[in-house]
Amino acid sequence: MPSNQQILLAARPQGFPKLTDFRQVETPLPEVTAGHFLVRTLYLSVDPYMRGRMNDRKSYAPPAQLDEVMIGGAVAQVVESQHDKFQPGDLVVGMFGWQQFALSDGTEVRHVSTGSAPISTALGILGMPGITAYCGLLEICQPREGETVVVSGAAGAVGSIVGQIAKLKGCQVVGIAGSDEKVEHLTTELGFDAAFNYKTTDDYYGTLKQLCPQGIDCYFDNVGGPITDAVFGHINVNARIAICGQISQYHAEKLEQGPRLFWKLIEKQARIEGFLVFQFIPQFRAAIQQLTEWVETGQLKYRERITEGLENTPQAFLEMLQGKNTGKQLVKVAEVE
Amino acid sequence: MPSNQQILLAARPQGFPKLTDFRQVETPLPEVTAGHFLVRTLYLSVDPYMRGRMNDRKSYAPPAQLDEVMIGGAVAQVVESQHDKFQPGDLVVGMFGWQQFALSDGTEVRHVSTGSAPISTALGILGMPGITAYCGLLEICQPREGETVVVSGAAGAVGSIVGQIAKLKGCQVVGIAGSDEKVEHLTTELGFDAAFNYKTTDDYYGTLKQLCPQGIDCYFDNVGGPITDAVFGHINVNARIAICGQISQYHAEKLEQGPRLFWKLIEKQARIEGFLVFQFIPQFRAAIQQLTEWVETGQLKYRERITEGLENTPQAFLEMLQGKNTGKQLVKVAEVE
Repeated sequence: MPSNQQILLAARPQGFPKLTDFRQVETPLPEVTAGHFLVRTLYLSVDPYMRGRMNDRKSYAPPAQLDEVMIGGAVAQVVESQHDKFQPGDLVVGMFGWQQFALSDGTEVRHVSTGSAPISTALGILGMPGITAYCGLLEICQPREGETVVVSGAAGAVGSIVGQIAKLKGCQVVGIAGSDEKVEHLTTELGFDAAFNYKTTDDYYGTLKQLCPQGIDCYFDNVGGPITDAVFGHINVNARIAICGQISQYHAEKLEQGPRLFWKLIEKQARIEGFLVFQFIPQFRAAIQQLTEWVETGQLKYRERITEGLENTPQAFLEMLQGKNTGKQLVKVAEVE
Repeated sequence: MPSNQQILLAARPQGFPKLTDFRQVETPLPEVTAGHFLVRTLYLSVDPYMRGRMNDRKSYAPPAQLDEVMIGGAVAQVVESQHDKFQPGDLVVGMFGWQQFALSDGTEVRHVSTGSAPISTALGILGMPGITAYCGLLEICQPREGETVVVSGAAGAVGSIVGQIAKLKGCQVVGIAGSDEKVEHLTTELGFDAAFNYKTTDDYYGTLKQLCPQGIDCYFDNVGGPITDAVFGHINVNARIAICGQISQYHAEKLEQGPRLFWKLIEKQARIEGFLVFQFIPQFRAAIQQLTEWVETGQLKYRERITEGLENTPQAFLEMLQGKNTGKQLVKVAEVE
């Protein structure tokens, strides 16, 4: 009898997650019933938002459940179908979870349409991270030509796209990242005007002052904490801050303390707005279309860090949380057939 | 030779201001030159924003200067004029400062137009605080019928108007204030649905939970600090937070620390925006018109706390900062002639 390899959430992390918070099991392959189809996972996505779902706390989505398959997006291939819209051989993207095979009724599953780009980009630049960057920057920050845009987590799946789109819109772009290699990548390959390594910089405030002589008009924040405090010190009148992620805070067992800075928002008549990619569903199609065009013309570049093997998904997830990836972190589970 | 009584900024406050931070002097009455006019102060306004101007720190406006007349708005009467637009006897409102007489070239001076309401309201409900409440609430918070609106500093000049306008817009309104008498005033006289005294309440979070069973859609913040932290715990999806003031923070010698809560903005796709009344200049006329109508029909109520005598302006200012006023704190300097 054919079987399925699955990775379950074994324990809720205390602080930074560990490999033992996950457990791999072998289960029988599910049977395909009417209106359903079975997919074989090709690529799994590991993303910062998953850290939040591992906590037993209701947020915008229910938490991942203990002893159940860890949630996550994947590119997969249909192997068997009793569903009108999905045929064997179809390449699809959906929330299939950390497993070799998944049964689906088609909810929130779409066909992969990455044009000439590899199918893995359906989880990155031409998928959720790309849409997050595109809509978050253009809808929340609304950057105008000549403005200064700062991005934290700038070498990650989302940040690296945000900075490039801001450049396409004629902005001065400054990235904040966690290694010299990432900083080099941002400024030489992705066209950022400047970047700095926050792990080897003591004075974020002074560094930003030097790199943003005109002040900061837009800030796209993936990180939070002291980096964001320093950005506050340089915001211009009418600044727009998009809060996409707060990865510096996700592992805290209790709320971290920081300086109270809301008075600065009054002085600068500035706006902070948190967002989730789902609020932009009506714009998804247009976003993907524009991103695809930019990728095909070479105006948007991307990197993927691909870990091999389903069994290495927890390790890939931890490495992504540690910032070892430049660009999108993926796990390759199987080849297209 | 006629003289002028003036109150100067004598020292920059360390922490909470003291009477000795001010000094009263007698100076010669200024001479009226071409294009200028002389006014006699009738009512002076003391406002929270003045605390910020006492610091030697550039903000949205330059700081008040040491040994110069303390800045501030006033209702005054023209006594002598070489200016086309202002004639002796005219009642005007402008930034005349803490003094008996002031010379003006007409910059940012307008004629008092309070209809049947007392001229003092040109410094309160029909002046800057009224416009701040009206535009801040309607433009930044954009409350919709049936939503829950929370106001901090709810019994102050701005907060008391915010809550009443929110009621006129069909919202559930909860006020936070600093005495039982203020709480009583809000709920019995001004029509707030509920209010609580933050000075005698330990558990802001639990109290808000009880008073806002549908969560919080709009928050108009005059105060900041732990009250605002507690509000964050109850915001609904798409909540709008207007930062009008942060009076709890103005006396801090160094930045106060508080919990980092920006992740909550992501979860709730919520927005925080700081504002200054000056950004709404194009709406001033319409705002005053609507406020005047509501005052005349009795739909908006207001209170004034009037201290007598220019020499008592510093004391009135300190008492306002201590929250001794319900409604607008004014100083009466002279009678209309």
